[in-house]
Amino acid sequence: MKELQEKILKEGTAINETVLKVDGFLNHQVDPFLMQRIGEEFADYFKNRGITKVFTIESSGIAPAVMAAIKLDVPMVILKKQQSKILNGEVYQTKVTSFTKGTSYELTLSKKYIDKDDKILLIDDFLANGEAAQGGIRLIEEAGATVSGIGIVIEKSFQPGRKKLDDRGFDVYSLARISRLAKGVIEFVE
Amino acid sequence: MKELQEKILKEGTAINETVLKVDGFLNHQVDPFLMQRIGEEFADYFKNRGITKVFTIESSGIAPAVMAAIKLDVPMVILKKQQSKILNGEVYQTKVTSFTKGTSYELTLSKKYIDKDDKILLIDDFLANGEAAQGGIRLIEEAGATVSGIGIVIEKSFQPGRKKLDDRGFDVYSLARISRLAKGVIEFVE
Repeated sequence: MKELQEKILKEGTAINETVLKVDGFLNHQVDPFLMQRIGEEFADYFKNRGITKVFTIESSGIAPAVMAAIKLDVPMVILKKQQSKILNGEVYQTKVTSFTKGTSYELTLSKKYIDKDDKILLIDDFLANGEAAQGGIRLIEEAGATVSGIGIVIEKSFQPGRKKLDDRGFDVYSLARISRLAKGVIEFVE
Repeated sequence: MKELQEKILKEGTAINETVLKVDGFLNHQVDPFLMQRIGEEFADYFKNRGITKVFTIESSGIAPAVMAAIKLDVPMVILKKQQSKILNGEVYQTKVTSFTKGTSYELTLSKKYIDKDDKILLIDDFLANGEAAQGGIRLIEEAGATVSGIGIVIEKSFQPGRKKLDDRGFDVYSLARISRLAKGVIEFVE
């Protein structure tokens, strides 16, 4: 998505070899019109997959996910990041460790909002090591539902997440694919 | 907002005198079209205030806030809930204690995304004791900016948050005002 690449080059900041700050339009301040176009791009790409719900992981994926859900005319579900909590049998829960942030959390989904017939489009802001996406996939598959597509706003293609998802046969559509980061340097996959 | 009241009556669950679960369309599963109409309703009400940015508190306010931001043609900013973190002078931060959830967090705003000339519309999903809203107001006022309006999706009018904000002279627009909750009972302000 050319517009997104240009926005990243103009407003993103590469701190080092692994960290890209996009706090100005995606993670803290949010450009709502860009989110709308991103959501529409995902919806257009995945429109013939019979998607029944858009899932996202709180909280930076919510804005693009709600826009995709509108365009696909389906509900959106926010997978919650919770601190350890007593399971009561009404939720699916899986531990996710973020290497990027050095934290872990319990990704949680109420059993009420997924069904084995659901075809899920999973949307997230970043794909790096793939831990968050794989956590979402575990919850969806535990419910017996289908991951029908994965939409990523910014993929760090030099990290292993993309390959892990490709190897499992998922259709991953990333709107910006970054091949290299360094202090002040941002390069995209050709 | 009649449509929201009807949705709350149909799909919300009053657990006891203080807890209303709306996980089916607002807090976990999200109805994107309802969020769009909620955002438009906020935008319409506050349209003549010269709003420059929509602020919200992560994460259930993001969907309605991004919709309001689109309609008002301004950026949206997500105030972050962080665990205690070292302040580096680049952020405004204030402690918020949620009586409802029995937790506390540091509400955080980068100084880059607010200016003393900003007129902010603050949007949140619930207003109960008003702690989160007041935390957002503290950050906005610390930056020297103006709180030009507060948009609330569901107000528990029997709790003190609304009065606290009214007493300080803020214009609070709540789309559903609940006068009483009890197990299985949801009543609205006339």
